[in-house]
Amino acid sequence: MNKLKLQSMLKQFFNEDIGDGDLSSDLLFSPSDQGSFTFYAKEYGIFCGAEIIQIGFTLLDPSLNITLLKQDGEKIEIGDELARIEGSLQNLLSGERVILNLVQRMSGIATNASKAVELIKGTEAKICDTRKTIPGLRMLDKYAVRTGGAFNHRGGLYDCIMLKDNHIALAGSISKALQTAKSKIGHTVKIEVEIETKEQLQEAIAAGADIIMFDNRTPVEISNWLELVPPHIITEASGGITLENLRAYAESGVEYISLGALTHSVKALDISALVQLKGAKVYEHR
Amino acid sequence: MNKLKLQSMLKQFFNEDIGDGDLSSDLLFSPSDQGSFTFYAKEYGIFCGAEIIQIGFTLLDPSLNITLLKQDGEKIEIGDELARIEGSLQNLLSGERVILNLVQRMSGIATNASKAVELIKGTEAKICDTRKTIPGLRMLDKYAVRTGGAFNHRGGLYDCIMLKDNHIALAGSISKALQTAKSKIGHTVKIEVEIETKEQLQEAIAAGADIIMFDNRTPVEISNWLELVPPHIITEASGGITLENLRAYAESGVEYISLGALTHSVKALDISALVQLKGAKVYEHR
Amino acid sequence: MNKLKLQSMLKQFFNEDIGDGDLSSDLLFSPSDQGSFTFYAKEYGIFCGAEIIQIGFTLLDPSLNITLLKQDGEKIEIGDELARIEGSLQNLLSGERVILNLVQRMSGIATNASKAVELIKGTEAKICDTRKTIPGLRMLDKYAVRTGGAFNHRGGLYDCIMLKDNHIALAGSISKALQTAKSKIGHTVKIEVEIETKEQLQEAIAAGADIIMFDNRTPVEISNWLELVPPHIITEASGGITLENLRAYAESGVEYISLGALTHSVKALDISALVQLKGAKVYEHR
Amino acid sequence: MNKLKLQSMLKQFFNEDIGDGDLSSDLLFSPSDQGSFTFYAKEYGIFCGAEIIQIGFTLLDPSLNITLLKQDGEKIEIGDELARIEGSLQNLLSGERVILNLVQRMSGIATNASKAVELIKGTEAKICDTRKTIPGLRMLDKYAVRTGGAFNHRGGLYDCIMLKDNHIALAGSISKALQTAKSKIGHTVKIEVEIETKEQLQEAIAAGADIIMFDNRTPVEISNWLELVPPHIITEASGGITLENLRAYAESGVEYISLGALTHSVKALDISALVQLKGAKVYEHR
Amino acid sequence: MNKLKLQSMLKQFFNEDIGDGDLSSDLLFSPSDQGSFTFYAKEYGIFCGAEIIQIGFTLLDPSLNITLLKQDGEKIEIGDELARIEGSLQNLLSGERVILNLVQRMSGIATNASKAVELIKGTEAKICDTRKTIPGLRMLDKYAVRTGGAFNHRGGLYDCIMLKDNHIALAGSISKALQTAKSKIGHTVKIEVEIETKEQLQEAIAAGADIIMFDNRTPVEISNWLELVPPHIITEASGGITLENLRAYAESGVEYISLGALTHSVKALDISALVQLKGAKVYEHR
Amino acid sequence: MNKLKLQSMLKQFFNEDIGDGDLSSDLLFSPSDQGSFTFYAKEYGIFCGAEIIQIGFTLLDPSLNITLLKQDGEKIEIGDELARIEGSLQNLLSGERVILNLVQRMSGIATNASKAVELIKGTEAKICDTRKTIPGLRMLDKYAVRTGGAFNHRGGLYDCIMLKDNHIALAGSISKALQTAKSKIGHTVKIEVEIETKEQLQEAIAAGADIIMFDNRTPVEISNWLELVPPHIITEASGGITLENLRAYAESGVEYISLGALTHSVKALDISALVQLKGAKVYEHR
Repeated sequence: MNKLKLQSMLKQFFNEDIGDGDLSSDLLFSPSDQGSFTFYAKEYGIFCGAEIIQIGFTLLDPSLNITLLKQDGEKIEIGDELARIEGSLQNLLSGERVILNLVQRMSGIATNASKAVELIKGTEAKICDTRKTIPGLRMLDKYAVRTGGAFNHRGGLYDCIMLKDNHIALAGSISKALQTAKSKIGHTVKIEVEIETKEQLQEAIAAGADIIMFDNRTPVEISNWLELVPPHIITEASGGITLENLRAYAESGVEYISLGALTHSVKALDISALVQLKGAKVYEHR
Repeated sequence: MNKLKLQSMLKQFFNEDIGDGDLSSDLLFSPSDQGSFTFYAKEYGIFCGAEIIQIGFTLLDPSLNITLLKQDGEKIEIGDELARIEGSLQNLLSGERVILNLVQRMSGIATNASKAVELIKGTEAKICDTRKTIPGLRMLDKYAVRTGGAFNHRGGLYDCIMLKDNHIALAGSISKALQTAKSKIGHTVKIEVEIETKEQLQEAIAAGADIIMFDNRTPVEISNWLELVPPHIITEASGGITLENLRAYAESGVEYISLGALTHSVKALDISALVQLKGAKVYEHR
Repeated sequence: MNKLKLQSMLKQFFNEDIGDGDLSSDLLFSPSDQGSFTFYAKEYGIFCGAEIIQIGFTLLDPSLNITLLKQDGEKIEIGDELARIEGSLQNLLSGERVILNLVQRMSGIATNASKAVELIKGTEAKICDTRKTIPGLRMLDKYAVRTGGAFNHRGGLYDCIMLKDNHIALAGSISKALQTAKSKIGHTVKIEVEIETKEQLQEAIAAGADIIMFDNRTPVEISNWLELVPPHIITEASGGITLENLRAYAESGVEYISLGALTHSVKALDISALVQLKGAKVYEHR
Repeated sequence: MNKLKLQSMLKQFFNEDIGDGDLSSDLLFSPSDQGSFTFYAKEYGIFCGAEIIQIGFTLLDPSLNITLLKQDGEKIEIGDELARIEGSLQNLLSGERVILNLVQRMSGIATNASKAVELIKGTEAKICDTRKTIPGLRMLDKYAVRTGGAFNHRGGLYDCIMLKDNHIALAGSISKALQTAKSKIGHTVKIEVEIETKEQLQEAIAAGADIIMFDNRTPVEISNWLELVPPHIITEASGGITLENLRAYAESGVEYISLGALTHSVKALDISALVQLKGAKVYEHR
Repeated sequence: MNKLKLQSMLKQFFNEDIGDGDLSSDLLFSPSDQGSFTFYAKEYGIFCGAEIIQIGFTLLDPSLNITLLKQDGEKIEIGDELARIEGSLQNLLSGERVILNLVQRMSGIATNASKAVELIKGTEAKICDTRKTIPGLRMLDKYAVRTGGAFNHRGGLYDCIMLKDNHIALAGSISKALQTAKSKIGHTVKIEVEIETKEQLQEAIAAGADIIMFDNRTPVEISNWLELVPPHIITEASGGITLENLRAYAESGVEYISLGALTHSVKALDISALVQLKGAKVYEHR
Repeated sequence: MNKLKLQSMLKQFFNEDIGDGDLSSDLLFSPSDQGSFTFYAKEYGIFCGAEIIQIGFTLLDPSLNITLLKQDGEKIEIGDELARIEGSLQNLLSGERVILNLVQRMSGIATNASKAVELIKGTEAKICDTRKTIPGLRMLDKYAVRTGGAFNHRGGLYDCIMLKDNHIALAGSISKALQTAKSKIGHTVKIEVEIETKEQLQEAIAAGADIIMFDNRTPVEISNWLELVPPHIITEASGGITLENLRAYAESGVEYISLGALTHSVKALDISALVQLKGAKVYEHR
């Protein structure tokens, strides 16, 4: 990830929550009151967000003492300690919610991605994400997908060509659309073509697509059609794929399976913060 | 919602996805190619996001013709048309994904909020959200909660005081914490106190809390303790509340029930775009 | 105050003054020329702005040696030294004006607020500010008001409801306006109602206002009407209040008195910087 | 003024006040409720801020109907109508306070500048401002000074050289400081030198200063020393000048008199908004 | 190009030049003074920058009347009129320099790219750019390269993998570096490998590179080695290539030739603005 | 230069190139892989950009060890080492291209400015730049011009008045234009007048111009007309001046000669980075 961009994002997020000041902590604590946070897991999953904790708390207070106890991608069990941060309680509390919101979401994405990867174990297929990320969070959402062992599809409209039905309809045919694209685009950009029929597949192959996407096809259709695809062309299945039918797709022989739900419908992983005042008893924040 | 802020957010989100250009649409279409989008529901739910569609597409191209067919908060059935946008296909396609990502999330939140509200129908209780929103999207997340018929808890750390365990421990007692807060804070800010025991409740009432939050208490505990609360003090239940036990909490007599899951774990509502080239056949985008 | 936001504000302010460079200091000094600044008071007042000095000079040059000699809220006498900063003269001089402009304004506000507070000593009333702050400086203006011992009214349009004449007229009546507001707003937001007649007061009380604002009423009117107000409803006087009639209002028994002039018409407190070149004589900057 | 910059400033200012939404107007009005604002004077003065009204309200709602009734720089009497804006009441009310805050300050500055200009009528002297402006508002503060008939000193550290005591001390002498500056600076930049003694004056003249600033000198000293200054060198008096001794300075023969108080200590001009609901009675906002 | 991003860039550029105001035009003209600009060529070349003119002047003044007389990519001869803009002279003059600076640079890039393309006419090779663009202008620089008939290499570090000597050295070998990259990167990203020897070439082919870059190789070497490269792998020559030896490289059979000088060393194309006051004689601005 | 502004610019530039991450370095290196960069000259010239290296790499990684071996303005020979940076290879490589792009451009400008200065050695004339800088880079472009020994013309439209043909035509005459400008502008701003005829020259002198610009005049014309110019008025030649006729202009006796090509048509100076992995062999990047 780009750390300069991450710093800017975190500043924006803290300002959204803190506004002109954290009324509660500013009124009740003095800057010199000390304490510590321990983030720990309340649910089994894959941890993701170490840099959020490190860079986020450092932005709020460079003097905080931050110890990361788990690395991104590590499996975590209920009760596992993930990170410990010590220093000014005022700054710890002002940053807690924003950082937990991000770490819980990213760990939730990584955990689900990991589950999907687990489900297709033993096949050659790989899981990938889509552009169905939360606006403003794509860098983090896609990082979490990678952390869970899955792969990233294109970053945005700017770094890969996808020829969909409308592009093809307006160009006249798959061949014409590919020809137009190839005559103008640089050699570092791949061209992916969505197909729904065997004829479209054959046309896309003949016209030189880099990636073929089987759009809303059954595992059986895909399996049959794959024989037509030469080895240097990459294949992808998309549309109507769920955790239930995922393995069937993986066993069809397709190379990539894209899952929008990895990022558009995320269950936050349950991670809590134990707060301890220096010399005082322990509290738990959810 | 603040429309100037919404415009800035949408610009940032479009730039995230489009980057230096939408390679596919820029190469395959000319600016004069015309088409139309129809957003329609593929799932039952509550629609939310009319302004996203209106302001978002207008930012990309002020000459687009936008017709909103549903209002925020309306129930939508499978197949219902939600909005129709006509004009330059290039601009329509460049903006589609970002707008769908937002409308699907917001409608997902509104739908879930509405379900929670439905579950407690007939009681006096109200559902409210928390600060567990997606960083960068709080204004939209909280708007969607309201659209679903639930209520907003505080906007951030800046507009309400929450005295939690740590604030109280450091101040010495609930009374001292409330006294300190009251001696410094303006009269437009409410003070909420988290309590876990009957003694804490009594102390918070005596010390003049505006809102009492029953933290991780059972419906029975709450029901019993509510007799101690005078009518001008507002009560809230929080912690460990799920759709399963929600009605039991609502029947306890508590006034507000806060649910972090309304915004931290959201299932996007399935909304699609039917794209039609002028004078051509219809395609469906998910 | 939110320090991340303060840093952004100070960067913007320095860029406004420095532009592409401080021609005079860049040409006449080398980065290694050393010197010191001593800020001192030329007028009696209340000091406000320690964080401006600390964070502002640190932004320009993290190696500057900054010693704060007074705390925000301390009384200062003519000649009192407020802060001393040592290090690269180039950076000291480039930042001087912006920092003095802010500290002089904030100390001016704190001093005036403190004078108003002094004028009502012995009564139960409290002084508060309004939204008549300098655009772009609200966080600082409101902090200075608190530093002077007065209180903050709402932060903006987003954190408290004020039902004014127009809102009421359009709703039909105070009761209807309050009813509409209460049916939609979260429980952490207070609702204040402006009233001008006894009938309006009675209606606002009956309809459940949290705060009653006596708009342009005389101390006598207020005093008479206060008998009607139950203890859990907060009262505020506003409109036409000056330092001359302030005490009369305070003695009316009203709890809060809002003064727009605290922030809309500010006399900067006279604070100067003594500059000393390392090993050279002392100069004074105003 | 730079209108693109003004638009950005106004967006920032509206966001500061509106935050995530104007709770009161959003809840009580529907977007279609119509009304009108009339800004009018409650005090004699010089009007300043027509573009604030025009650009500000247009940002919030391009469909508002804005009629400017006074031009910047016009004298206004109590009761004079300044501008009328008609359209969606929701947008009118959300923008009112920010726009009034700016127009009241700018008109206050213009009025005071105009008073100072009036005080020296009949002399050859001109009044000018300083860099003691409100951080973030310099463009507006300096525009208001011009509107009042006074002149602008430098825009910032970037567009004019000021050789002050420290610059001179470090360079060794006025001659050496001027020589250094002249050898490096472009020909479009003027060099001003602060002097406190006759010897310094003579040295500055000999070394080729463009502008001489008499720092904290009496009118008599200035008058005597002016004989030494050749006609193509501009003179300025600064330091310890008040409305009381202003005319004495003007009569000394000095060309420019700089007054920090024009912008650092401003009394807002009393301007109000009469709000009228379509078909309803008139209310007055202060 | 992304128009929302282009608008933001142009705002930033205008603010850089205009600052707090265009002193000359603001003082000498009133907003109602009318005039027209005609941009015309003083040199043969390829025009590029129509959107700069259209979007730039519209930002400054939406009421300007803009007529584009040439399209991007058209050949222009000395004296050709490129665009005509009519309306408020003040806004025309305030925007002229920034827009000319961009259009002259972009047309200069397009013209040079076109010359390079011309030089290799008849061969199969294509010219492409590099990341040696002006920081802040990459979107425009790369657009101008395309306008001149050449192609874009990767957009940045984010959209293509380039395995250079250091990456390879640290990984241990080309095979290991490719293996690592392939095991982690998504299928939409291409991997390019820099090679300097025949052995490296063979290793890169065997390990599955998408693109081979011949780094600082002679046309003869490249020609010989190309026989080893299978048809689905793309080849590129880079390093030490000038307009003089360009054709030799193109005739080697390599597919892409990258030229840093296309964007790092640009001669602005000589384009001028003829300014005409309404009803007055014609002036020419360079 | 303003370092806060430089930091913001560099952040923007790094984000343009890095986007959501440097795919190659992020995948192939771990943060702990160490290495060093040595920037060295491959061409004779004037070095410019020390602060770019210092501030740029520090932004990416404050723990990098940066040693500057040449100062801005120093002559550099082929092979000279300019700076050495040691630390995390990942951060070194992610920042390399942006920093080289800037340093090569700035050194190219400084080198050309220095050549122009050299060409007029022995005359009294000085070389200066124009507003024909790259949008977004003016601060850097103008700094590089100074580094090469030339001078800066005005910073933008905001800090000097230029009365050109159109301003004069609309005002009616040079005298009227100057009179208008002088009656409104502050005393720190210079007024430059473009003249094309002897009559215009005489009128500009009589009306009190600070600077006279001879627009597209021959050295002979300028030489003849200079006799009419009193010593306190500065003269400048502009238009149609090239390195070929530069000395003739300098010998005409004019004081400043402005050259747009200094910044609008820049050849990047050839500077390379030698990269060394800790304990590994040396590579060279261009």
